[in-house]
Parts: sequence; structure tokens; C-alpha cells
Amino acid sequence: MVQLDLQTQLRINAERLQASLLELAKIGATQKGGVCRLALTDMDQQGRHWVINKAKSLGLSVSVDQIGNTFMRRAGRSAHLPPVMTGSHIDTQPTGGKYDGNYGVLAGLEVIATLNEHGIETEAPIEIVFWTNEEGSRFTPVMMGSGVFAGAFSLEHAYSRTDQAGKTVRDELERIGFLGKDKIGEHPCGAYFEAHIEQGPVLEHHDITIGVVPAVMGLRWFDCVVHGFEAHAGPTPMEIRQDALQVASHLIQYVVTLAKNHAPHGRGTVGMVQVFPNSRNVIPGRVQFSVDLRHPDATVLSQMSADLQKKIDSLSATHAMTITLEEVSYFPPCNFNDACIKAIREVSKGLGYSQMDVVSGAGHDAIYMARLAPTGMIFIPCKDGISHNEIEDAKKVHLEAGANVLLHSMLRFAKPIL
Amino acid sequence: MVQLDLQTQLRINAERLQASLLELAKIGATQKGGVCRLALTDMDQQGRHWVINKAKSLGLSVSVDQIGNTFMRRAGRSAHLPPVMTGSHIDTQPTGGKYDGNYGVLAGLEVIATLNEHGIETEAPIEIVFWTNEEGSRFTPVMMGSGVFAGAFSLEHAYSRTDQAGKTVRDELERIGFLGKDKIGEHPCGAYFEAHIEQGPVLEHHDITIGVVPAVMGLRWFDCVVHGFEAHAGPTPMEIRQDALQVASHLIQYVVTLAKNHAPHGRGTVGMVQVFPNSRNVIPGRVQFSVDLRHPDATVLSQMSADLQKKIDSLSATHAMTITLEEVSYFPPCNFNDACIKAIREVSKGLGYSQMDVVSGAGHDAIYMARLAPTGMIFIPCKDGISHNEIEDAKKVHLEAGANVLLHSMLRFAKPIL
Repeated sequence: MVQLDLQTQLRINAERLQASLLELAKIGATQKGGVCRLALTDMDQQGRHWVINKAKSLGLSVSVDQIGNTFMRRAGRSAHLPPVMTGSHIDTQPTGGKYDGNYGVLAGLEVIATLNEHGIETEAPIEIVFWTNEEGSRFTPVMMGSGVFAGAFSLEHAYSRTDQAGKTVRDELERIGFLGKDKIGEHPCGAYFEAHIEQGPVLEHHDITIGVVPAVMGLRWFDCVVHGFEAHAGPTPMEIRQDALQVASHLIQYVVTLAKNHAPHGRGTVGMVQVFPNSRNVIPGRVQFSVDLRHPDATVLSQMSADLQKKIDSLSATHAMTITLEEVSYFPPCNFNDACIKAIREVSKGLGYSQMDVVSGAGHDAIYMARLAPTGMIFIPCKDGISHNEIEDAKKVHLEAGANVLLHSMLRFAKPIL
Repeated sequence: MVQLDLQTQLRINAERLQASLLELAKIGATQKGGVCRLALTDMDQQGRHWVINKAKSLGLSVSVDQIGNTFMRRAGRSAHLPPVMTGSHIDTQPTGGKYDGNYGVLAGLEVIATLNEHGIETEAPIEIVFWTNEEGSRFTPVMMGSGVFAGAFSLEHAYSRTDQAGKTVRDELERIGFLGKDKIGEHPCGAYFEAHIEQGPVLEHHDITIGVVPAVMGLRWFDCVVHGFEAHAGPTPMEIRQDALQVASHLIQYVVTLAKNHAPHGRGTVGMVQVFPNSRNVIPGRVQFSVDLRHPDATVLSQMSADLQKKIDSLSATHAMTITLEEVSYFPPCNFNDACIKAIREVSKGLGYSQMDVVSGAGHDAIYMARLAPTGMIFIPCKDGISHNEIEDAKKVHLEAGANVLLHSMLRFAKPIL
């Protein structure tokens, strides 16, 4: 009956949460209402200190690891238990918004504020974390801090990455005072939750408050090149043309067909096209285009890639043209933890929020955390599904709901003492 | 019986014709075996003098008009008759070949040499002409000299056109000594023939020696823009996307369908495509592409354009996207003169050359001449249909055949005196 009691009475403070989001958004604020706070810049440094000060005012102890990931800890009754963690990132795109990443971190601090307010202790410690350089705008790869934390790539690799001015991650960490001492690989984690704006239109489209994220899609990126024969658009009869664009157009359509064949989670996008010589009265001799295939099931994703290759082979034979397909990137799908998913789903229901499953099409720090600990993600709607944009927006009622789901989901793992 | 006699015995000299083509090709020769002789450059000037010297050595009198068109005249017995003319151009593309244009001019001089050799007089005068700036590579518009000659646009307009360095046509004509005195509009023409390489693959494909050109296709150029909605390739479900490229791909295919619906002369080409923002993981928000429609019948060409607009309206309604279509150029079709076509066809048959009708997909000076006088064109095959390229090539046997057809076709109009 204790859980039910909390569920009825314990709620985060929506005003306070929103106020803190708007306050943090002032650091690196852009004229168009967005935020520019690139990883390891002076703005990032200011943002980090603002969050740390807020955490300290909530009584949290702060530690920084070797890649600058920053952990803000509320003790539990059992100090030996691994912490139940939540967080996200506070670095942004060059023309980013107020909510991407920031929401996950500040919702975590709001959870702490709420627990403090009600004097609720937990068995396990609770930690709020902001990961270094999730966006990858200044330094690649994306999700750098959580990637190093999870052992996806080495600390040395991350340190050596440079921005366009040639500055290294290590030097910039040192410069802003976040080259921490905590060794990578020695930080325990009992469970990880991340609250995030959806960055897509599904929740808004269905008028749903909470997205339960069972998985993040796998991703395969290809470059495809169709080799035809360049010729004059006037004198060359239709039946003897080798028009690379016409063949490419069939493949461009097939990429979407492939995705629809694996609905609802399949995604297929051609975003980039280059036509050669790209002249009004010349039949295209060569067309290069990108293919972006996504699916949460690795087997299906492989099948989609194989089907694309089959289609290419068939078109290549029919039209007697060389068509090449080269894979340039692969991120395997990530399935989140059943217990975490169940907790988020049940808590949302219990709190009376409408909810639905939303498979994430984009990457998040939680993908790497899922390699180390039971992990779950909570999505809330964002206006028109727009993110990575200065006009990114989210409603207070949704920000509130997501933080309440985060609070109660974490309590299920951290176990409140009443 | 006189005509038959000539047809049996009178032939041009293939060795001499080929030698003169290779000799002229030395002026502006490129390392890859092509020619760069842009209009009104020093190279063009040298080429013009070379041709004029050759004409003078054949006893022709030379005159230059106000736009630099150069006429080389062999007197007829009846000085009052308008001349039977032939010619083409000697300016080339920046990476042009030896035959485009040059063949028509030198085949004309070879006709004169043959008549001289056999002491054949004609009733009407015969004139060989090279028109100024057919290619339009240095100064637009294309077919400038013949366009001014035919009154398609004014002398003042042509004079004022500039190259990339800001030099005007008038100044450059003056500089190279070809700002002639003959007034535009005062030069009579009894009939005009033009021999030319096909610049397409049809004759070679069918292993035919002579192309009889009944018409030149009309041309409509459009810019089409599809307006979709830019969104992230990951989180955006297939069914709520507004992917501008997918809709564009259907139109790109329909442009070819349109041409095939009006076979064999219909042409439809999309040569230029620009995708925005052209990023691998962003659903294209806007796609712009060119449309090139051609047909020898103006009514059919209009119908093709109307059908394209209908298809656009239908796709726009289905996908709830704005699609704009803007016409950027229109050249009406040109039908050549029946008597000229008949002469070329009968002469080819009489000389024993295989022949077929080939509608020209590309523009030629003959299009403008058709506004003034009975006009016909003779095509010969070129290697792989390639032109406007340094590897442009033609066989001696075809060069010979085309010049023989030119000789006997012109004699039908100029009337030999035997």
C-alpha cells in the first residue's frame, strides 16, 4: 500500500522544472530563442557549473570522470547498492533547442528536489548524470561520454578527437576544468532511466502524453552509385538511353517500399542525391545517393539491406548498368530492459497519463547505458516533432508528466523508505 | 538524261575533303584530339582566314555581313537569281570536335572544287557560308549569326552580348576584322542546305549512311519544384512524411513516360536535380529539377506539357504538397521544305546510299534559314553518337557520302548547264 500512497500523493513541481529549463537555456541563448552550447566550450563550462551549483544546493555530492561525465549523487540507506541513475546531456547543436538533453538532466534534479521536499529516503543511492558531448557537433563521434563510459570505444580515442580548429577533446576538457579523476570502468550502475523529448511527431500526432520506448532502431547507411551513359537530351532516342537518374529513381522509391514492407517500425530515407553532370540538356551519366535504413530488429534490418541489394542486382541486369552499393555506417538496434519498460508503462498508467510505445529512431546516451545496466527511456511530445532546431518546444504539462513518470519509475528501483 | 549522267559520274573527292577537315582542325587543336575555337577569338579569326583563303583559291568572291557571317560566292549564269546556299559554322565548343559545323562548311567548298574540276556552270549562283557564333559557348544566344540574318533577334541585341570577361560581340567582331559592311536583310537566298554530323546515335545504330532531316524538334524547358517537409529520417514514421524527393521521383519517371507515350519522336529528360537540405539523415524538404521536353509537332509538345501539369496537379492533391512548374525556354519545332527533303531523299537513293528520316533533336543554323528560304539538312553518322566532345569522330566513307548528296541536291536547285 505504500507504493499506492506515493503514487497518489507524490508529484514533481512543474513550475520549478520549467523555470530551471528556461534558466539553463539562458546560457548560450540564441536570438531566435534556441541554444548554442557546443561541447567543451565556455558556454558548456558555464552550463555545467550552473547544473552543479543547483545539484549542490540540493545536497548532492558531485564527481567527474576522466571523460568529463559528471555524476551528482544522493546517498541511499544502503551505500553498497549500485545507484539508480538518470540523466542525459546539456551540450546542444549549433542551432539547438532548450529541451533536447537538458530536459533529462533537469527532470532528474527535479526528482531529487521532490524527494528532498517530502523527506523520502531510498535504499539505493540516486545519481543524476550529464554525459559529455552527446551531440557530436563539435567533436565526433556522437554520444562520446556515454560511449567511453560503456566501453564502446577507448578513452584515448575520445581524447584525441579534434574540432575544426584542431583542438583536442582532452585539452578542452582540461581547459574548462572537467578532466575528472574518476576512472572509466569503475562506476557502478544499478539501473538507468532517461527522459527525453521525442524529437519526432508520433506522440503529438496521436495526442499521447508518454512514450514508452521499448527499443532504439538499428541503422544502416549506404552510398549507392548508378552508372549510366551521358548523352545529349535532344538527339538520343528514348529506347537507347542509359539514363542513370531513371534507374536511380526506381531505387529511391524502393527504399521507401522496403520500409513500408516492414511497417510500422521500418524506416527508409534517401536524403542526399548528386547527379552528374547535372546539366539541363544532358542525360545523367551518373547518379550517387545515400540510403538510410532503420529497424529495431537486426534480422529485419539485414533483410532490408539484402532486399535492396537484390533490387539493385535486378535493375542492373535489366538496364545493363553498373550499380554499386557501399555500406558506410552500422549501428545495431538496442532493446531496453523489460523491467524498466514495464515500470515506465505501469507508472504511466497508474498516474493516469495516456501512453503508447514509441521505438526511438534517433540515438541517445541510453543506448550505451543499456550495455551496462537495466535501462529504459521515457519520451514526451515536442511541438511538430521538431528538434535540433531553435524553434524546438515542449508543453509544460508534458514536461511535468515525463518527470513524474521518471520519479516513480526510479523509486521502483531505488525503493523508498517510508 | 543530263541529270542521270551527272549522277553516275560526278563525285566529290573524299581524300581532299578529309584532308581539309584535318587541316582546319589544327587551328585550335587540343591535346586530346579535339578543337577549341570559340567564337570571335584569335583562333576563330585564324580559322576564318584559312577558310577564306581556300575559297579564294577556288575562285570564290567573299563578303562579310554586319554580324560577321561570311559568304563565299561562285557566280551563276543568271546573276539575278538568288544563290543556292550551303554552310554551317566553324566556331566550336571549348572541348569540341573536328566535324561539328566544320563539316558543313568544308563539304560546301568541296562541292565547289568538284564543280570547278569538271567545269560545270550553274544557272543560279552558289554560295558557301559560315555563320557567326553557332555554339553560343562564349556569347549567348546560340545560332547568333543565322538568328540575326533571319531576323529572329536584332543586330543591336547581338552586338551588346558580352562574354565572361565583359567583352562585347561588336568589339570582338571589330577586333578580329569581321565587322562586315553587308547590311542584314539585304542578302537573297534561293535555297539553303546544311550537311552535318548527326550528333546522335540513330544512324550508326541502324547502320545507315544518310539521314534525311524532315524537321527539328521543338523544345520546352521547365523548372519544377516540389515542396515537402524537412524532418529527421529516424523518428519520423513513413506514413506521415512529406518527402519531396519521393514525389519528385514519380515526376522524374513521368517525364520519360510522356516521351514514350509520343514515340518515336518524343523526348523527355530530367538532367538536373537539387535536393534540400541534401543531408543523409534528413527527409528532403524541397527538390528542384529541370524538365526538357521535345517533339517535332508543336501541338503534341503542348499536349506533353499539359499532361505534365496534370500529373503535377494530381500528385500535389494526393500528397498535399505544393509543386510548381515554370517554363524557362521555348523553341518551336521547325519543319524543313518538302522540295528540299524530296531532293535529298531522291539523290541519296540515286547515289545508292542507305538512308532514313532522322528528326533532329538539336538546333542548327538551318532552323533560322528555314524562315527565309526552302531549307533541308543532310545528316551523316558520327561515332557512338558523340558530339560536343574532343573524341567526336566520323568515317571518311560517311563524310564522302554526305558531301555527294549535298552536291547533287544543290545542283537540282542551282541547275547545271551542260
